[in-house]
This record gives sequence, structure tokens and C-alpha cells, in this order.
Amino acid sequence: MQAGTDDEAPTLGSAGERAALRRIFPRLPDADAALLGPGDDAAVVAAPDGRVVISTDLLVHGPDFRLAWSSFFDLGWKAAATNLADIAAMGAVPTALVVALAAPKPTPLADLEALADGFREACAALAPGVGVVGGDLSASPTLTVAVTVFGDLEGREAVLRSGGRPGDVLALAGGLGRAAAGLALLFGRAVDDQGNPDAGRMPGLRQEHAALLDAQLTPRPPIPAGRVAALAGATAMLDVSDGLLLDAGRIAEASGVRIDLAADALAAETAALAREAPALADRALALVLGGGEDHGLLAAFPPGAVPEGFRPVGRLLDGTGVTLDGRDPGAVVPGWDSFAAWDGAAG
Amino acid sequence: MQAGTDDEAPTLGSAGERAALRRIFPRLPDADAALLGPGDDAAVVAAPDGRVVISTDLLVHGPDFRLAWSSFFDLGWKAAATNLADIAAMGAVPTALVVALAAPKPTPLADLEALADGFREACAALAPGVGVVGGDLSASPTLTVAVTVFGDLEGREAVLRSGGRPGDVLALAGGLGRAAAGLALLFGRAVDDQGNPDAGRMPGLRQEHAALLDAQLTPRPPIPAGRVAALAGATAMLDVSDGLLLDAGRIAEASGVRIDLAADALAAETAALAREAPALADRALALVLGGGEDHGLLAAFPPGAVPEGFRPVGRLLDGTGVTLDGRDPGAVVPGWDSFAAWDGAAG
Repeated sequence: MQAGTDDEAPTLGSAGERAALRRIFPRLPDADAALLGPGDDAAVVAAPDGRVVISTDLLVHGPDFRLAWSSFFDLGWKAAATNLADIAAMGAVPTALVVALAAPKPTPLADLEALADGFREACAALAPGVGVVGGDLSASPTLTVAVTVFGDLEGREAVLRSGGRPGDVLALAGGLGRAAAGLALLFGRAVDDQGNPDAGRMPGLRQEHAALLDAQLTPRPPIPAGRVAALAGATAMLDVSDGLLLDAGRIAEASGVRIDLAADALAAETAALAREAPALADRALALVLGGGEDHGLLAAFPPGAVPEGFRPVGRLLDGTGVTLDGRDPGAVVPGWDSFAAWDGAAG
Repeated sequence: MQAGTDDEAPTLGSAGERAALRRIFPRLPDADAALLGPGDDAAVVAAPDGRVVISTDLLVHGPDFRLAWSSFFDLGWKAAATNLADIAAMGAVPTALVVALAAPKPTPLADLEALADGFREACAALAPGVGVVGGDLSASPTLTVAVTVFGDLEGREAVLRSGGRPGDVLALAGGLGRAAAGLALLFGRAVDDQGNPDAGRMPGLRQEHAALLDAQLTPRPPIPAGRVAALAGATAMLDVSDGLLLDAGRIAEASGVRIDLAADALAAETAALAREAPALADRALALVLGGGEDHGLLAAFPPGAVPEGFRPVGRLLDGTGVTLDGRDPGAVVPGWDSFAAWDGAAG
């Protein structure tokens, strides 16, 4: 074994899992809340509230990301960002993460270091003080990142999906349709003649559409807005992972209300998206209504209570389901099925 | 799609991830500590101590288990048991788990249900009141189970690996070499003529060597012994995942002591293992000293403080490394390298 020599870069397989962990861990961010970090059988994290908010999420190579498009840095960033958003969506403040990583043996240690860098930079940018308190690393044919994230409620009640009331204002912090627009650009322009993801076409596309590709590859959910919403009295909240219509439908179903989205409130960002990517102009509204992965925070507030950083996008009313200016959104979002959308049958 | 009809059993691919989750979740155990369970963006778990103990662990098909030998029930059991042991090893009491599962699309939902059953039965048997508070499910070519487990310290300090002192007694709760003996039986007798794992040979082998195969496939770490050890004043502790020699070496290194194991103290279980599996008699001591995956709890106690359920297996002394009756264990464990063992270079 010549791991570490100049002419043969060390890999997970050649260096082994423990040696790889020793390379990775120093690059991961420390957590302010860590009372005991990596190195023992378990970590100990402060939970000053006496409760801990917990979410877990898997990213699997293929269904969830393509390495022709996402660098390992991007992948670490996105895994951190999407998990942090789940804590923010409860009105909590994220404190720490654990990361379980399975990677093919030929993976260069430099790639695993870049993944750690992505975690570190995302935490620093989106939730300073949050760090990685533990992890696991295995060889696997399929690159898989499993993240579990923790948060503190600071004495408040968690903001659930179920507390919305007729009369509340539906408001959003963060982007809409931008991550999906980035994905549409990737599928449209970062593929070879057979339609397969092509890394060679990334530099040009990323230069031309930096903001939209960043929205897809290194999203920046408004993590502090979760706490802001809770303090303002949000009655319901979630992060928009599967698109405005579907996620609004989840609040509607859990709260037992109808949600009516206001096309006017979405017009400016629809127009902006169309200007930014003229090739997508004809489906800009569909992207804004149906595009997922922006991980903005969608919340219901009593009238007059919408805090800074949130903009109104609709109203909670008596009834069920989601409408757009009182009508079935199916007219503008091809394939939208207001009944199937949140029963999960689509998988 | 005919998912659910008699002649075509539903799979993860045919039913979709959300429908599969709806089938799985009712079978998972509730956690007494759950203040908010699955269904929102995150769960909320009680952390009455104001600190939460956290560990995460991956099981990957191939390196970590073979489906010819482990049923999905076994896999769920083992994932729960090994994670619970990490919490016990800190002197803490486990409270809850989250499970992120990646499985191939053709996986029958019945298998995923069996996996949930394994989690439920292991929690009920080993740590009643512990339950699953959240999860994620993705399609992947490689079956992967990522578990994160939580525990409460009940106001005590965590028991680290680093607190052992010269003069302490090293003591163990749980089995030694039994899981490795089970694995040796599987590799020796549950394979076809080409040496590949063969499910057809399992029923006979499992009947003949039920206890040793159970030790490997559905281990029963002594979870309550972690709390017992902490209350008795354990100065250091871990769970024996990689074998007595290697894990004793971890305590020795972290505590800055030498550990001398007593062959006498291991004689009875070495003899018992040889009687139970005569084919393994010539390597029974090597299995007891070097075999991993029993997940017993290995702890250091001040003299006279070893509590019920733990049996002495050695002493902590001035110096470094691990010895057996004062000598290099390499003489009895082929391939044992007392310098390489705990620096992790083996991967």
C-alpha cells in the first residue's frame, strides 16, 4: 500500500475507514452545544430546554444527486442546509449534526475532505455555531449521506403543521421555484447527446446561471427565520421541500383548512425567474408553484403578525385543499392533482 | 400498477416511499420520551437532564451483513441492539432512535415491515420504552440502514474511555467471542461450494447452533448494565464492538494505562465456547480475545466496586498497551499486533 505518495492519491479503500475519519474530522465544524465531541462511543450535546428537536434525512447517489453536477463540497453543503431547514421549520434553533457516510472504496480522501468542507461552510453561512458532533463511515457501492440534525426550542412550543386557523395569512421566507429552475437547466443543458449528466458542460452553465444553479446545488434556506416566525406567533410552519402547492397542501390537511394562494403575490418572482432564465419563461409560474428543494419556510400567521423576512403568499380559509385565486391550480400546473398531491401515492 | 393484489406483492418501487412509510411506521415502537413523533418536519424528544447523548451508526449490505444469513427482522434487531449499546456504554439510558433506510426498489414491503418488527422487538427486549421517533426512506441500489440513537444521563457524568486509573479492575458484562464464533460458523457452513453465502444451509445450522448464531445475528447487549456501571462508579467504559483486545486497547490508550487481561478469568468461557462448537475449539481463546460484535460492556472500576452483572477480566496498571498475564497477546491470537490494533490503520 502506497497511500499518501505523490503518484497515487489515497482513497477510502487504500487508507481505511479509521484513517479517513482522522482526515475528515478536523475539517468538520465544532458545535457550540457539544459537551463531548467525537472519539467516545457517543457524543453529548446540550439540550438546555429539556427537549431536543430531531430530524433525519438521507441523500442517495442517483435519486437525490448526480456527481456530474454536484461536487462533494456541494453535496456536503446541501445535506447540511436541507437538514438545518427541518429544525428551523419547527421554530427551533439548530445546535448540532451527526453524519453517517457510505462511499465507494475508490473514493479519494480528498473528495471526503471536500464533503466535510461543504458541511463546515454551510453551517458557518447558515447557522453559525452549529457543528458535527459524531459520525460513521462505511464502504458501500452507493454513495449515501445520512444526516441527523438537532435543535433547541428555547422554551417555546414547537410550531407544527397542524395549528393553522381560517383567517391566518400564509407567508414565505426564502425562494420559490429557483432550485427547480436550476434542476431544469441541468437536465436541459448539462447533459450529453444521450441525455446523461455531463460534468464537462457544467463550468459554462454555472457561469451563465450561477444563482439558479446555486439554488439547486448549494441552497441557502433562511434558517434564522424559523425562530423569527415562532417568536412572531406562527400557528403552522414547514419547509418547502416538495413545492409550494404540495407543501401548502400539507399545512391545509394537517390544520383542517383550505389554503388559497394569491397569484398576485407570486407574480413578481415568476417574472423575475422568467427574465433570469428566458428558456424557462413559459413554465415560470409552474416552477414557482410546483418546484421543490428551495427549503424556504412556509408559515401561517394571525393577521397583522407576519414578521420581517416573510412575505404573504395566500390565506387560510374554511374548507380543504389548495386553490390559486379560488380556482384549481391544475389549470396552470400541468399534472397537478389536488387530491393526490399530499396523500403520498406518487412516492 | 397492481400493488397490493394477491399475485404481485407490493414493493418499495411499486408502492412508493410515502406509502411504504405508512406501512412501516405503525409497526415501529413508540418512545416513552417522544413529545412529538413522526409526521412533522422533526420530532421532539424529552431530554430531562438538559443534555442528550447521541450516536450514529451505518449498516451497509455486503460489508456489514449478508441477506442470505440475516433476515430483515434480524437486520432491524441488530441495528437497534448495536446502537442501544453505544448509549449504554456512556452510562446513559437510551430514550429513542431515528432510522434512515435506503433499499432497492424491488424490496417487498413485507421485508421492510419485518425490519420494523426487528426494531420493535429488540427495543422491547433490550430497552423497553425506547422507540423510533422519526425516519427517512429512499430507493437505493444498496440496502443501507443508518440509525441515530439518543440517551439520557439522568444527572450523572458520562462515562468516557479516558477515566481509567492504574489499580482499577477491568470487568465485563455480556458475552465474548460468541458473535464471532457465530460468524465463523456462517462462513464455514452456510456457504455453497464456491464459498458464497447460501440461505439454503441456514435452517439446519441455526437449529444446531442457535445460541451462537443468535449472538451474531440478533445480539443481546446488556443495555441496563450501562446505568448500573455508572452508578457503581465506573471510571471508563465502552462496548466491545471490535474484540476484547482491541477495545481494551482503546481504554488503555485513552486512559494512559496498561491493561493486563487475566487468562484465568477467560478460561471458563473459552472452554464453554469450545464445548459448544467443537469445530472452533482450537481457536476458542482467539475468538474470546479477538472476536467482535458481542457489544458487551467493558468497564473499569475502582477495586471493590465491580457491580453485579460484571465479571473481572483484568487490571489497569501503569504503562501502555494490552497484555495477557503480563505477556504479548500475539502468542495466542494469530495476527494480533499490539501496536497497530488501535491506531486504526487496519480500517
